[in-house]
Amino acid sequence: MAFGEFDLIDTYFTHRWPKRDDVVKGVGDDAAILTLPSDSELIIATDTMVSGVHFDEQMPARAVGHKVAAVNLSDLAAMGAEPAWLSLALTLPEMDQEWLEGFSHGLREICDYYDCHLIGGDTTKGPLTLTVTAHGFVPQGTALRRDGAKPGDWIYVSGSIGDAGLALAAQQRKVQISDSHYRRVLERLYFPSPRVALGQALRDIASSAIDISDGLKADLGHILQASNVGARVDVDELPLSLALTESVTAEDAIRYALHSGDDYELCFTVPESRRGVFDTVLARHPAKPTCIGRITSEANKLRLERNEEPWQGADEKGGYDHFG
Amino acid sequence: MAFGEFDLIDTYFTHRWPKRDDVVKGVGDDAAILTLPSDSELIIATDTMVSGVHFDEQMPARAVGHKVAAVNLSDLAAMGAEPAWLSLALTLPEMDQEWLEGFSHGLREICDYYDCHLIGGDTTKGPLTLTVTAHGFVPQGTALRRDGAKPGDWIYVSGSIGDAGLALAAQQRKVQISDSHYRRVLERLYFPSPRVALGQALRDIASSAIDISDGLKADLGHILQASNVGARVDVDELPLSLALTESVTAEDAIRYALHSGDDYELCFTVPESRRGVFDTVLARHPAKPTCIGRITSEANKLRLERNEEPWQGADEKGGYDHFG
Repeated sequence: MAFGEFDLIDTYFTHRWPKRDDVVKGVGDDAAILTLPSDSELIIATDTMVSGVHFDEQMPARAVGHKVAAVNLSDLAAMGAEPAWLSLALTLPEMDQEWLEGFSHGLREICDYYDCHLIGGDTTKGPLTLTVTAHGFVPQGTALRRDGAKPGDWIYVSGSIGDAGLALAAQQRKVQISDSHYRRVLERLYFPSPRVALGQALRDIASSAIDISDGLKADLGHILQASNVGARVDVDELPLSLALTESVTAEDAIRYALHSGDDYELCFTVPESRRGVFDTVLARHPAKPTCIGRITSEANKLRLERNEEPWQGADEKGGYDHFG
Repeated sequence: MAFGEFDLIDTYFTHRWPKRDDVVKGVGDDAAILTLPSDSELIIATDTMVSGVHFDEQMPARAVGHKVAAVNLSDLAAMGAEPAWLSLALTLPEMDQEWLEGFSHGLREICDYYDCHLIGGDTTKGPLTLTVTAHGFVPQGTALRRDGAKPGDWIYVSGSIGDAGLALAAQQRKVQISDSHYRRVLERLYFPSPRVALGQALRDIASSAIDISDGLKADLGHILQASNVGARVDVDELPLSLALTESVTAEDAIRYALHSGDDYELCFTVPESRRGVFDTVLARHPAKPTCIGRITSEANKLRLERNEEPWQGADEKGGYDHFG
């Protein structure tokens, strides 16, 4: 096919994409040249999606384009960062113009929404694999980290969790759900909303934060490990969607919320002393966070409870680990 | 295998790696936190290597680790940037500990040499693919670009070119060469040296620069296009190694130098007014650049000459294009 790498970038990834003033030079040189606001720190995240592993042929190209940016912006959100620039490494088996049309459309939509400038990357031939590196910034010293949780801090989760896992299970015919519920949860699996505004609002409020990509149990576990603390979580407080609670048993809904990933909500902790400010900020955010428990001093110990008794439905299943 | 993604990072990519003071938080959170020197601009490059496309099973894992960093550092060098941080997206078909040992060794060696801190990335399961995003910086406004060449500027190439192409041809048994020459050129194919020090020395001297990844003809062509100028190049001035000139005919040696990529030398232009300073700087650099021609006002026209006559060996073969 007489369609070159340079044409590809020119056709699909250049025109009518959002431009930012802090990009001195974007696509078209050996590397991009950027300026950073003064007194700020740079935040950098990288995530890869591999065809056949993170998505399959059922997933529309537009959703692939949205999601590969969304998962990276979700990492920036978990740091409290303002997103700015994306690099894209795109490995494609062949020049599939229809797929590229959809993919670049999905990617451009989310770049438009968050004012992200695609500053460069690489296109190569090979098995379909996408890597995005996302860059953002925070005022110096304000980044949210995993290692700041203290005993007594309250634990919150934004939005609802377990929906993306339900969508995947339904798609793999492991569970039967209604068409309308399926459409709703599939939207969450395919077009996750990174909690960018919430993350930034939490900068001076939360003591720690993480995005839920591998499941609440695994990701809260990362906070506990990094902060050297424990947690008590009341399983009846987990924020569950109607789609989830109406599709599976009450106990299974909790299991989806705990163990399935890909929801890209934020899990974060708030010290007692910041709860007043937090409630004020909260009122402005649509992804209203729910308090699910409290940090304890028992290092690395996550207690799942119901009415202050151990939850009987707990099992040992952890989060998603690619080489587990 | 009871070997997880987190163990992988911990075992191969954390301990005894170079650490930098400007890394507030590297591996181990949702994203890395970095500080930039004041009055500087950030330079970002991304390159991917795919197994079966950019390298094959013959290539030692240590060379893969070296090269995926080197090609990115070469992009930073072509901008005149000082390298600082690397992100790595590593997609692996299986947990091959021997390969990982070699790969991480090669990557760590080059990180050590250039004082680069591996700040994060992603490890996923899938066909062997590596994407590195390299970050560096330049004092504000000093980045070397492709679009600054002016008629009358002198054209230079560092080191020697065509060696990596010869190594590939020999490996594919398209040409027969002596064992000692093969060892020498294979080293260049497997362990290219990004011209980082030279690039930084050229900041206030060169009017444009690019690294030679796709072949001199194609990459000088990018300078001509971006700068809207032309060039005259004397093919007898091309810097060729003894390994190249002793292995193929004189005309073929020129063709290797013009058309084969992967040498990662710098091609750059120097205005007449900066030649005095340039010669002073030159004396300090081992990768002594050779003057091969001059920029003209004929937009996009590359004239290959010998004794000021058109070179008869020219053909239409361009550089490497993945989807050509």
